[in-house]
Amino acid sequence: MPSVSPTLSAAMSHVADSVTETMERILPRSDFAERKLFEAMRYGVLNGGKRLRPFLVLSSAQLFGVDEDCALRAAAALECVHCYSLVHDDLPAMDNSELRRGKPTVHIQYDEATAILAGDALLTIAFEILADPRTHEDPKVRCNLVAALARASGAKGMVGGQMLDLIAETTKLDIGAITRLQRMKTGELIACGTEMGGILGKASNQHLAALRAYAHDLGLAFQIIDDLLDAEGTAEETGKPVGRDEQAGKATFVTILGAERARSQAILLSEQAIGHLNVFEGRAKNLEDIAHFVVDRRT
Amino acid sequence: MPSVSPTLSAAMSHVADSVTETMERILPRSDFAERKLFEAMRYGVLNGGKRLRPFLVLSSAQLFGVDEDCALRAAAALECVHCYSLVHDDLPAMDNSELRRGKPTVHIQYDEATAILAGDALLTIAFEILADPRTHEDPKVRCNLVAALARASGAKGMVGGQMLDLIAETTKLDIGAITRLQRMKTGELIACGTEMGGILGKASNQHLAALRAYAHDLGLAFQIIDDLLDAEGTAEETGKPVGRDEQAGKATFVTILGAERARSQAILLSEQAIGHLNVFEGRAKNLEDIAHFVVDRRT
Repeated sequence: MPSVSPTLSAAMSHVADSVTETMERILPRSDFAERKLFEAMRYGVLNGGKRLRPFLVLSSAQLFGVDEDCALRAAAALECVHCYSLVHDDLPAMDNSELRRGKPTVHIQYDEATAILAGDALLTIAFEILADPRTHEDPKVRCNLVAALARASGAKGMVGGQMLDLIAETTKLDIGAITRLQRMKTGELIACGTEMGGILGKASNQHLAALRAYAHDLGLAFQIIDDLLDAEGTAEETGKPVGRDEQAGKATFVTILGAERARSQAILLSEQAIGHLNVFEGRAKNLEDIAHFVVDRRT
Repeated sequence: MPSVSPTLSAAMSHVADSVTETMERILPRSDFAERKLFEAMRYGVLNGGKRLRPFLVLSSAQLFGVDEDCALRAAAALECVHCYSLVHDDLPAMDNSELRRGKPTVHIQYDEATAILAGDALLTIAFEILADPRTHEDPKVRCNLVAALARASGAKGMVGGQMLDLIAETTKLDIGAITRLQRMKTGELIACGTEMGGILGKASNQHLAALRAYAHDLGLAFQIIDDLLDAEGTAEETGKPVGRDEQAGKATFVTILGAERARSQAILLSEQAIGHLNVFEGRAKNLEDIAHFVVDRRT
């Protein structure tokens, strides 16, 4: 299995550091009695995540020569939404997870009410960031960013996927239903990353469609590998509890296809994703590399 | 005590019906497995509420000749945020309320996970509605609406106020801290109603400031009466459990000022609110009437 190229690794670290700094700067602090809320928001986002979605925003935005500070703000907004979804997903009434990336989840570190509110506030601030003129001088672009993020993360996107995921615990889903579930739960927000880059760069419809198709395949490949890591990884490697899908009797790509076919499928999707980038005539190197990374990762 | 004028009552009913219809039309439906999420979203908003915030949007927008359909969309977005906050506030980890407006709360009618997700989706769709060109043709106006709603409902507004409210259960707050709590928890979103009307109408800074000052006083008066209803009302009258603040040992305007002084204070604030409307030279009749209504209401 090829390992992550040093170039990609450096580029990802750079984006992860920059977007973390951007969130650090944008997220409010407070000296008032409610400071716990602000601390929990920071705790929920400043968690050493891979920042895959921000990397997609930056890499797509780069294709169109977008100013990096603008792209970082949009990426920070997207990451706030991703992190809020993890905070709520970990709640006792949802996945009931106590550990995330090797650290106590927000409701364990603080309490359940604080975790609910911190998630709500992270979702809210994402839209405040996008509507701010510092994210892009053209208000039409900013509105398009807001609309794209809301669509990807709402009832017909991520939140709908989370609902399906809960239903999957008690209902047997077939491969089509699981593909739809995963596309909604994780795929839409991943696709939103490349879409936001395109929106910031006022990309043509042809380029937007290519980015969307790429991200669609990438998102599914990403999820299949997530399922494989849950089935085969260890808590030390992944920084979160493993084997939970199987314990819950939940159908996943791995339980339906088996580990080997699931991995082949992920590799196929990754190659297919890269194919969609032809329209950029070799300029989308970061996006190509990330498609390899997504299937090679161990965490 | 004066009763609600028939004119105001008719105007409020008209807005309540129109904004409910607008939400009915905008909120998505689904025939897929996740339909429970969509049903819970509808259940959370189509609940026979007074629609005070939408009324403020419509009444302010009217001052500037804003198209009613645009104002209704903005009002629907604001009401979605208000309703999401009630859904999350009622959760077991928060206020643990089983009854709202005489009906089971969302987590009782469905389940806790569905209530968390339905709240998340309602918050998200609010921003999708505002970013849509049908809400206003000028994208700058739409961005200003998104920013205003996010600020009013986020960590420095409503969500921060909810956090303070939880803290108030275990910490004794003085009248200043309670005023700040209530301003954040309910005042900011009420003020956002008049602000949105002004933004839609591209109001001058002078007019925006007057609307903000009006809504600030109105919001506090509203909250003081809420506390009075909790202390003195019955569950039949208010459609929700009463006496909960006292049971929880929570400091409120009523526990600190006593019922009589609290009511005088609300009436004073209501008159002060009306004073801010002088700049509209008698054209803000609805806003004047609502300031009377807020202190006269029984539910």
